[in-house]
Order: sequence, then C-alpha cells, then structure tokens
Amino acid sequence: MKDAAFCTSSCPMTRTMSVLGGKWKLILIDHLGERRVRFGQLAQRVSLISRKVLTEQLKELEDDGIVRREAFAELPPRVEYSLTAHGLALLPILAQLRSWHCSAATAEVAAA
Amino acid sequence: MKDAAFCTSSCPMTRTMSVLGGKWKLILIDHLGERRVRFGQLAQRVSLISRKVLTEQLKELEDDGIVRREAFAELPPRVEYSLTAHGLALLPILAQLRSWHCSAATAEVAAA
Repeated sequence: MKDAAFCTSSCPMTRTMSVLGGKWKLILIDHLGERRVRFGQLAQRVSLISRKVLTEQLKELEDDGIVRREAFAELPPRVEYSLTAHGLALLPILAQLRSWHCSAATAEVAAA
Repeated sequence: MKDAAFCTSSCPMTRTMSVLGGKWKLILIDHLGERRVRFGQLAQRVSLISRKVLTEQLKELEDDGIVRREAFAELPPRVEYSLTAHGLALLPILAQLRSWHCSAATAEVAAA
C-alpha cells in the first residue's frame, strides 16, 4: 500500500520512492521490459512474488501510469501487461542500477 | 532484514534489489550524497524514518560496502556516515530517477 506521507514529502527522492519503493516494483518493471506479458507469465518469471502481491503491485504501477493493463474479450479471458512510455523511460536507468551492482559483484570475486 | 532468496536469485535486478530494495535505502543514499553526516542529522533530514529502522538500514548499507561509518573517540562520542566510492557511484543514477519522477509530475500539472 502506498504511504501518503511519502507522496506529499518535500524530498524529491522520497516522492520518487512513493512510486518506485518497495522490493518488487523495479524488478517487475525490469521483467516487463519492452514486452507484453500475461499475468501468469510474469508470476512465473518473478517466482519469489505471491500472486496477491503481484496483483497489488501491478495495480499500483497501473495507477501511477507506469504499466498498461489490456484485457481481451476472449475465452479464456486474456490480460496483458506492458510498460507505458513513462515506464519505458525507466529501463535505461534500471540497466545502470544492474551494472552498478554487477560491477561490485565482479570486483568482490576478483578480490577473493 | 535482507532476503536470502533475493541475494542468490538468478535475476540480476532481484540481486540488485537485495542491496537497494525497500523504501528507505535509495532515500538515505540520496540524503548522504557527498557529505559526512551524523546519525542525528540524518534522522532529522529523513524525518519519516524511525531511529530503529534508520540504524538497521545504515548497518545493512555499511555491510554492503555502500556506506562508511566512522566513530570518533570524543566526548560526547561522534559517529559520522558517508558514502564509499561504491555508494557515490549511485548518485548520478539516483539523480536520473528523481528527474524521471519530476518530469512526470510536471507533465501532470501541465495536463491538469
């Protein structure tokens, strides 16, 4: 659930974390990438998340304009998730976070 | 507390989040910036965090080589926190996250 005090904080980073904070959102955004993904596929890829939490997190990302949810009137019903333009703009930043972490892990291995 | 399953995940973004996930760490790193800050100052700047959680988060950041803790043998004792080179490398990425969020907020105001 989103923290109201975070949303209205005078600190820009705190406001940013009101949208991206928690342990799952950046992982979900990274997994969506440039693809259109079904709920079940996403649940499978991000295997540590429960379906309940995945539903909540996707809803919040949708409300914040980062994820687009499309429901198709088919049998069985099909629902696909993808990033909006706003969400896609995060991908290069997430790539930098990943390489920041990866470079540290490589340095640790080299030093061991 | 850190999630062991996150640390050993095969997903690079999940491993990154084992270090940076949660709602506080990126905020704390951003507040430390290039400064040396006392615990009390940090608690005051990041006013929404409890002192207990701040202590835990700083300890984890220290264990992960992102934050340096220096204790000075003075009376009263002085403890200062600052970012290591590894932590400092995150600052330009955090600046991009802030401007990503800020640009969306500006677009919302313009559209209102």
